[in-house]
Amino acid sequence: MNEQEAAAIVAAYVDAWNTGDEAERRRLLETSFADAGTYTDPAVDLAGRDALAEHAAAFGRRWPGARIELTSGIDHHHGLIRFGWRVAGPDGATLREGVDFAEIASDGRLRRIVGFFGPLPPPS
Amino acid sequence: MNEQEAAAIVAAYVDAWNTGDEAERRRLLETSFADAGTYTDPAVDLAGRDALAEHAAAFGRRWPGARIELTSGIDHHHGLIRFGWRVAGPDGATLREGVDFAEIASDGRLRRIVGFFGPLPPPS
Repeated sequence: MNEQEAAAIVAAYVDAWNTGDEAERRRLLETSFADAGTYTDPAVDLAGRDALAEHAAAFGRRWPGARIELTSGIDHHHGLIRFGWRVAGPDGATLREGVDFAEIASDGRLRRIVGFFGPLPPPS
Repeated sequence: MNEQEAAAIVAAYVDAWNTGDEAERRRLLETSFADAGTYTDPAVDLAGRDALAEHAAAFGRRWPGARIELTSGIDHHHGLIRFGWRVAGPDGATLREGVDFAEIASDGRLRRIVGFFGPLPPPS
């Protein structure tokens, strides 16, 4: 997978979070999220497209008008990627930011997504 | 696993890279790296303790006197961690920096380590 292909998959994945159209969300997740995909961040640990679709819908209900935006390009090697993101409120303010890591399955979709919130913690 | 336990495992793992004593390196990897562990960064994709021990030894030969130092605390949730690091030369200069992500196996050791070099790429 080259960088443009990885960027296209991530774009579809982010669009799936941002749409309010459940049929469109499903279509975008079928494009970007593997059948046995998992998604884990500090607040949730879920498996499968149905669970992720519901979680993304809940995100939209929690933060009406908010959108996820990429804050970096897609860094990738060996079928592994990372990218930065933020949740932008309707006024453009950053409501949350973080980084996602993911594995790309052999069919080119995201298989295992792990998110972390905020910057790296300071040295202890 | 609490934060102190995660920090102790990562400390042993980093020490395994830094030591020049092969028996000590083996002992540290037995403490910190799962039997079926994998390590992948932009330059290498390897599986198993023997392969990682040899890779760490090659690191020491490539950059004599260099040490890996943590540049952040250990961020963790759901048995997943991330931390920042740098390769410090004998004079303290940064030779490389990056971030590692890893899964913690049920026995408390690192099972799947994925490193990325440098900062996140700029938005495309």
